[in-house]
Amino acid sequence: MSGKLALGIDIGGTNVKLALVNEAGEVIASESVPTEPERGAEAFCREVAATAKTMTAQAGIAWAEVIGVGVGMAAFLDVERGWIEESVNLHWRDVPLGEMLTRELGKPVRVDNDANVAALGEVWLGAGRNANTALCVTLGTGVGGGIVINGRIHRGVTNMAGEIGHIMVKNDGELCNCGHHGCLETLASATALSRHAEQAGLVGKEGRELTSKEIFEMAEAGNAKAKAVVDDMIHWLAVGLSIGANILNPDVIVIAGGVVNAGDALIEPLRKAFHQEALARVARACTIVPAKLGSQAGVLGAARLVLQEIETV
Amino acid sequence: MSGKLALGIDIGGTNVKLALVNEAGEVIASESVPTEPERGAEAFCREVAATAKTMTAQAGIAWAEVIGVGVGMAAFLDVERGWIEESVNLHWRDVPLGEMLTRELGKPVRVDNDANVAALGEVWLGAGRNANTALCVTLGTGVGGGIVINGRIHRGVTNMAGEIGHIMVKNDGELCNCGHHGCLETLASATALSRHAEQAGLVGKEGRELTSKEIFEMAEAGNAKAKAVVDDMIHWLAVGLSIGANILNPDVIVIAGGVVNAGDALIEPLRKAFHQEALARVARACTIVPAKLGSQAGVLGAARLVLQEIETV
Repeated sequence: MSGKLALGIDIGGTNVKLALVNEAGEVIASESVPTEPERGAEAFCREVAATAKTMTAQAGIAWAEVIGVGVGMAAFLDVERGWIEESVNLHWRDVPLGEMLTRELGKPVRVDNDANVAALGEVWLGAGRNANTALCVTLGTGVGGGIVINGRIHRGVTNMAGEIGHIMVKNDGELCNCGHHGCLETLASATALSRHAEQAGLVGKEGRELTSKEIFEMAEAGNAKAKAVVDDMIHWLAVGLSIGANILNPDVIVIAGGVVNAGDALIEPLRKAFHQEALARVARACTIVPAKLGSQAGVLGAARLVLQEIETV
Repeated sequence: MSGKLALGIDIGGTNVKLALVNEAGEVIASESVPTEPERGAEAFCREVAATAKTMTAQAGIAWAEVIGVGVGMAAFLDVERGWIEESVNLHWRDVPLGEMLTRELGKPVRVDNDANVAALGEVWLGAGRNANTALCVTLGTGVGGGIVINGRIHRGVTNMAGEIGHIMVKNDGELCNCGHHGCLETLASATALSRHAEQAGLVGKEGRELTSKEIFEMAEAGNAKAKAVVDDMIHWLAVGLSIGANILNPDVIVIAGGVVNAGDALIEPLRKAFHQEALARVARACTIVPAKLGSQAGVLGAARLVLQEIETV
């Protein structure tokens, strides 16, 4: 076994992923259980802790060998205290998650938001390996972002850094959930892509909304409306990424989320558009790559947080 | 005397400022000489080195006491090697400035661009003191930017980070020097303000262009055209800063450059507009302040670079 062991926990809206990870990034054991946030944070922590301990024991590892617990979840939070200010999708508010888990597990706990831990995971083991400065952007229901500088998450002063989904890119654009107009999220999320396809008159069987994958496939197959919708999305994404890159000067931009399944149909034209939009010296130094770790990025990044931040004797 | 001593050099288009600075940020001796870039980098280094040594001797300090030399200048450069790739205003290209100065002065040399060292100066001793994350924006001929995270310059992978002047804020806006349209620089630099005033039919005595200061004064005095030009500039500056802040989540944004002389007439409406444009959680955590060090920021930041990066025995 390679050095220190950490437990990573990725709390999603539907499932909780757990993994025991060593310093080499190897997953020693893993588990997935339903989130069921309605049972409340106390019961959640108790039951997830039991799952973690059982999983560890079944892997033949003494719980004492685990140095700490890292948690990633979609939430506004106080990283220092491991305090969840608000998790919109779990309907949790003012939850001392770090404290609760420490009580249940007897280990130091680090909590951070999902975009940050996923970015950390990709820089540690995935598409952003060894990056000097990485900007990781997830195209999903919204557009999330995480920044990793010299291997460490850049959080800013209140853990809000990386909110590239809410930078204004289109003047007087559509209204965003955040209350502003023309945010990148209204133009380049998977949700936006589906919505724009629908507005262009493209619908799936029985009138349902098309997925990103279907829209990209239709564009590839020569559907002019689908192509226009895809081109528009790529244009605005390139504008947003160029803004982020001109500010951060990253060597890598990692694109994550289901849209990435479109592969080269997304990445190639995106690279081209990015080179047109960003400063030449910035674009030249920067590669745009699809994420590599998929749904494992969060749990690996959560474990990394602990391996990186917790000193052992 | 308080601890280590460093020599800061700020190479401007017209003058070179030199200062001996101690760890407490006290200036022990200072000097200013004409830049005269046309004499070439070799002669420049030789003569500036002579000035530095004379200045130090006259202050009663042995040259051996100086631990190193920091240099700030407007240039694209390779920080690691102290290599000037290009300085547009000095017409220098591919100059091993760090090496040349080390040869003349017998000390380790650190070179960085003017926006970065000025930002470092403001965070060390000026308006951004003790910031977790500071974004420093200079409104001058262009719009320059520097980012300081935990007291260190964030340079990105090729020292291009902080180029907030070239983020696109206005779709299909005016053509910028960088070749793109709608850059913040075309909307919020001192130059842009003067140009827009002229386009609005505002001219000074004998038809000359108005300065930022004059335009702000006219707006204050009730001139509707001047007010419209100022309001427009503040709006776009707020948009640009909100984009930078949503990405970086800074606790402080420092505004530097001559425009800052407008004082509250700039800062107060800018804060208000910024709160409308940025994410609420980002805006709440961030204060916009005018720079404090004026033209001394560069030379102090250049000295800081050395005090921070060079270890002494």
